[in-house]
Amino acid sequence: MKIKAGILGCTGAVGQKLVSLLSAHPDFEITEIAASENSAGKKYVEAVNWKEQTQIPDSVKSMTVKKCEPELDAEILFSGLDSSVAGKIEADFAKAGYIVVSNSKNHRMEEDVPLVIPEVNAEHFNLIDIQKKRWNSGGFIVTNPNCSTIALAISLYPIHKKFGISKVMVTTMQAISGAGYPGVPSLDILGNVIPHIKDEEEKIQTETQKILGNYENGKINFAGIKVSAACNRVPVRDGHTLSVSVELIKKASKEEIIKSFNQIENFGYAFSPEKVIEYTDDPYRPQPLLDGNLDKGMRVTTGNLRKCNILDWKFTALGHNTIRGAAGAAILNAEWLIHNGYTERKKK
Amino acid sequence: MKIKAGILGCTGAVGQKLVSLLSAHPDFEITEIAASENSAGKKYVEAVNWKEQTQIPDSVKSMTVKKCEPELDAEILFSGLDSSVAGKIEADFAKAGYIVVSNSKNHRMEEDVPLVIPEVNAEHFNLIDIQKKRWNSGGFIVTNPNCSTIALAISLYPIHKKFGISKVMVTTMQAISGAGYPGVPSLDILGNVIPHIKDEEEKIQTETQKILGNYENGKINFAGIKVSAACNRVPVRDGHTLSVSVELIKKASKEEIIKSFNQIENFGYAFSPEKVIEYTDDPYRPQPLLDGNLDKGMRVTTGNLRKCNILDWKFTALGHNTIRGAAGAAILNAEWLIHNGYTERKKK
Amino acid sequence: MKIKAGILGCTGAVGQKLVSLLSAHPDFEITEIAASENSAGKKYVEAVNWKEQTQIPDSVKSMTVKKCEPELDAEILFSGLDSSVAGKIEADFAKAGYIVVSNSKNHRMEEDVPLVIPEVNAEHFNLIDIQKKRWNSGGFIVTNPNCSTIALAISLYPIHKKFGISKVMVTTMQAISGAGYPGVPSLDILGNVIPHIKDEEEKIQTETQKILGNYENGKINFAGIKVSAACNRVPVRDGHTLSVSVELIKKASKEEIIKSFNQIENFGYAFSPEKVIEYTDDPYRPQPLLDGNLDKGMRVTTGNLRKCNILDWKFTALGHNTIRGAAGAAILNAEWLIHNGYTERKKK
Amino acid sequence: MKIKAGILGCTGAVGQKLVSLLSAHPDFEITEIAASENSAGKKYVEAVNWKEQTQIPDSVKSMTVKKCEPELDAEILFSGLDSSVAGKIEADFAKAGYIVVSNSKNHRMEEDVPLVIPEVNAEHFNLIDIQKKRWNSGGFIVTNPNCSTIALAISLYPIHKKFGISKVMVTTMQAISGAGYPGVPSLDILGNVIPHIKDEEEKIQTETQKILGNYENGKINFAGIKVSAACNRVPVRDGHTLSVSVELIKKASKEEIIKSFNQIENFGYAFSPEKVIEYTDDPYRPQPLLDGNLDKGMRVTTGNLRKCNILDWKFTALGHNTIRGAAGAAILNAEWLIHNGYTERKKK
Repeated sequence: MKIKAGILGCTGAVGQKLVSLLSAHPDFEITEIAASENSAGKKYVEAVNWKEQTQIPDSVKSMTVKKCEPELDAEILFSGLDSSVAGKIEADFAKAGYIVVSNSKNHRMEEDVPLVIPEVNAEHFNLIDIQKKRWNSGGFIVTNPNCSTIALAISLYPIHKKFGISKVMVTTMQAISGAGYPGVPSLDILGNVIPHIKDEEEKIQTETQKILGNYENGKINFAGIKVSAACNRVPVRDGHTLSVSVELIKKASKEEIIKSFNQIENFGYAFSPEKVIEYTDDPYRPQPLLDGNLDKGMRVTTGNLRKCNILDWKFTALGHNTIRGAAGAAILNAEWLIHNGYTERKKK
Repeated sequence: MKIKAGILGCTGAVGQKLVSLLSAHPDFEITEIAASENSAGKKYVEAVNWKEQTQIPDSVKSMTVKKCEPELDAEILFSGLDSSVAGKIEADFAKAGYIVVSNSKNHRMEEDVPLVIPEVNAEHFNLIDIQKKRWNSGGFIVTNPNCSTIALAISLYPIHKKFGISKVMVTTMQAISGAGYPGVPSLDILGNVIPHIKDEEEKIQTETQKILGNYENGKINFAGIKVSAACNRVPVRDGHTLSVSVELIKKASKEEIIKSFNQIENFGYAFSPEKVIEYTDDPYRPQPLLDGNLDKGMRVTTGNLRKCNILDWKFTALGHNTIRGAAGAAILNAEWLIHNGYTERKKK
Repeated sequence: MKIKAGILGCTGAVGQKLVSLLSAHPDFEITEIAASENSAGKKYVEAVNWKEQTQIPDSVKSMTVKKCEPELDAEILFSGLDSSVAGKIEADFAKAGYIVVSNSKNHRMEEDVPLVIPEVNAEHFNLIDIQKKRWNSGGFIVTNPNCSTIALAISLYPIHKKFGISKVMVTTMQAISGAGYPGVPSLDILGNVIPHIKDEEEKIQTETQKILGNYENGKINFAGIKVSAACNRVPVRDGHTLSVSVELIKKASKEEIIKSFNQIENFGYAFSPEKVIEYTDDPYRPQPLLDGNLDKGMRVTTGNLRKCNILDWKFTALGHNTIRGAAGAAILNAEWLIHNGYTERKKK
Repeated sequence: MKIKAGILGCTGAVGQKLVSLLSAHPDFEITEIAASENSAGKKYVEAVNWKEQTQIPDSVKSMTVKKCEPELDAEILFSGLDSSVAGKIEADFAKAGYIVVSNSKNHRMEEDVPLVIPEVNAEHFNLIDIQKKRWNSGGFIVTNPNCSTIALAISLYPIHKKFGISKVMVTTMQAISGAGYPGVPSLDILGNVIPHIKDEEEKIQTETQKILGNYENGKINFAGIKVSAACNRVPVRDGHTLSVSVELIKKASKEEIIKSFNQIENFGYAFSPEKVIEYTDDPYRPQPLLDGNLDKGMRVTTGNLRKCNILDWKFTALGHNTIRGAAGAAILNAEWLIHNGYTERKKK
């Protein structure tokens, strides 16, 4: 039996990716799609400016777009809402008893809201019980991190777990799809680099602390890692590439770090990658074009591990920003909720 | 009276840029162009696969390409030779009494060879007197740094001079023109990032030490700066963008660092930029497309100076890789030699 | 003595190019810059999102942007206004006695408005006398064609003049700068082709008829050429590339056509290209990147002339769309007016 | 039971695509991979510079690359050989009794060699019987057209069949993958258009005549269609876009032509597209990025059908050049051979 799923912000870039991925998902049935007043009332095919490289799923094409109001026939709401409206709408749904699985930044840093990458910090889902008291409706919100933070946190996690990380320097080269649609004007980025992305460095520096922190007694103790990020936009369609340097607490050899990358476990869910991280021996890899889509776009690829003259080790990490870093991240969070008994299929 | 100038490797990417820039230069007259045996004997227009966005200068079009042998009618030889052959050919010319101004890597790190950016370490030209003893012909070799190192060293220099730098982390996003022609296949880089450039990190880490070192008693004392570089190729035509973090010996405020950028002096030569460094207040700048060509391509632009959570400050730096970082760098070195009496116009 | 020039729509893409080109022009002095209410009252540097690859000219940087109302201190107004507002504003200025040199489409096809490329149909300027009666103020409007039409019409003109053209098929590959800023979203065009540009085919098909028509007794007799255009957007920054096929009335050899390309005369004005058309023998040329900027961006380059199996001859043509095809086209029209006594420097 | 399949030229661009597609194919088992002497003897993973966006199939990774000599354990050989060597090697295999399904140009225009797109001219496979007499070994060669010709011929076929086509003008905008690897240097194509592709126009003009011709009494009567092609390379990775104009023998309405597009039948084979052609109502489509991969890359998409001022109708057509236009085309030909009893699984 499939879970009834709704998509908030179904016409946006993340919303389209959610439509595309969920329509083929064995655990979910898209029962509702919702967006802004402009789109509400229209058929999806008329409301959306479809930009996926596949066709609009037949099952969604003729569905009517609803308003983002908590009267939808769904147990889980996937939110790809713009941050200008996500805060209130998601809270309204939680208050009304829905499970909200959000990709938006609004609630990420709230004390009782899990900010989770399942393979990294699933224990943070324990915050749900705390948060439920806030809404007192059975509903709650879980969030996934920012797109570049996800690829970073996944690549750091096995190292941090085994050896402890004290400092991280990261320079990102981020794809244009991260800015949504219409997003970056072509005149700004064709054959160019834009060396700044608004608020992105702060997100990486803050969210990483929460994700790699420990859950203890109903709270997250932030990881005491110093993180410094420099963010750049490059003319790449999908896939954020990261140049990372780390300082370790316990020294480790190249072989030990590579081994740790390979030891991170997947959960075996429908949307889990076969390999959460793969380390490539080719120093010219990972590349967004060649590695971004591997394992359904859910794999993080690392490579070119070498000594850093200032911190200990440096390497390249890559993750698909709209799948592993957004829509796929939300789906994996929802899958965890199913597999751990948080969905009850009894609502409404 | 113009100096007779020859160009070694005249058909390559750097050679073409040298032809283009020197043909319009007030101090030089291109009297010879030379290249490999394949090209020797042909007219330039037939030997070259011209890729500049201007037309082949009329004065060079019909010149006959000579072999790279020290029988050329020129006082200064500008070398854009490939490193597979530059070592021996440049030495042969120095031995034969010519001044060789080289962009190739081969002799850069030799103890008696100046590796110079005039505005940064012109005092290193003092090595010429030492080196002349080696060749005993009146000839000598001067070199300019690697393209990405030049932009980095220029941006570091005023900070280092004022406050002292102890550590530098730099991630580069380098243009395809840095790889010459045919260079990077389009299938590898269109819409992609290649997170490795052979030997580039080593060049940055080593050359920076020499350039920022002190000349003392006929030797260069390397700067004791720890430099860690991560190099990436991006789909940009011209202009290397650098994400830089620095640790200072003497603490400095944002205003003091910006002020230091503006204080680096140009030499007022024909090819000197009006501003050697310009700091831009727009956090989305510098960009290779918008800032790379300013000041004839000889300006380094810095921007987005902000606190680093690990070292002290981070910023973006940008320089045109084939002008400030190659052909223009060599020309400025040659101009320094003229203005400081190293050319005598008496040879042959 | 310079002509006082104002720029209408000074913050847009064409407006920026006009600011850039006119500020360095020997015949004009930018005395006024005007734009929409949003910008009016601000200094130019604050009103504009500058996207040129040069810096904002110092002389314009601190000028105050005015409203587009006919109270400006200028004799000639260059209009880069958006077509949604250009119609009325330009008419208001003509009515008030100003000379309006417009790049906008609004008045192009009016019977008494010259649509001119000076080297092609300067005789059409005779319409000015007719048009003046309409405004009865001494003012008038002259226009230049659409960007892709200009490159086409220039390349057709010498053939049409010598041999007569009966049919033209043209497929365009147009640069993104033709769509202004923000214009084409990067997600739509990076690594892609968009095979349609709104209203563009109609403009080419209609304007070409007027430009290549004859002025007779105060009217333009449209050229009876059948024109069929197919327009595509490609990920190129500047320069429209055209695949053209023509059917001739009087048969001609390859040599005769090439000769005709070279015979089109420039006017020797400040902004005239040295060669209005250059035919290249390299079948892989013209290319927007290598040929677009030649001759200040005012040259049209043709190449690869070969037999067509359906019409008579086919060839490639290329012109810089924002210079030869827009701002530079307007400037050349204004230069013609100066050189032919239409400016009197006595107004107001 | 699967057919034993070998791949000639397994390390090249088409060869890699064949490895990728055949390794997942229900009807074929890759039993042999072969390439030049340089690669022979190596494991595939060591011989190949893998550029597909998937990983090397496990089943092929460790296979040993053989020489292209007719001693391979396979019934069908798929050839992605370079045309400099394909002629002789393919003939050698046919002579030795193998079935050769070739993507190379060498044998395409030979009188007794089928040049086939199954949905268009499967009757041409009748030439096999004639050809077999030449080799007298049971072996034979079948070929598929050039990549841009395939998309053109598929889009023309239903119109030609229903209404008859007398003239075709086509301008292509071709992807870089069509040139193989390393292929087009990035400096030549990034942000640029190259308005010429060697021999491409001739291939389109000639092959289209053969494909749309009739098989009669052991011969192909070429279609008497006048075809004129203009070929351009654009910075697109995969997918050739065509601007097409056609003159019809029997006049047809827009609706009739669109209807004909939808009537072309697929064969229901494993690699057949669900829709051989789909006409899109969006004038901004088809686009290589959004439409190229539909239906496994085997669909041709047409759009923007409109009146042509010179011929009758013009439209845009798009096909994936390395799938529908190369590797997939060969596979579909091989599937036809299986389904029509040409493979016997009894060889060797």
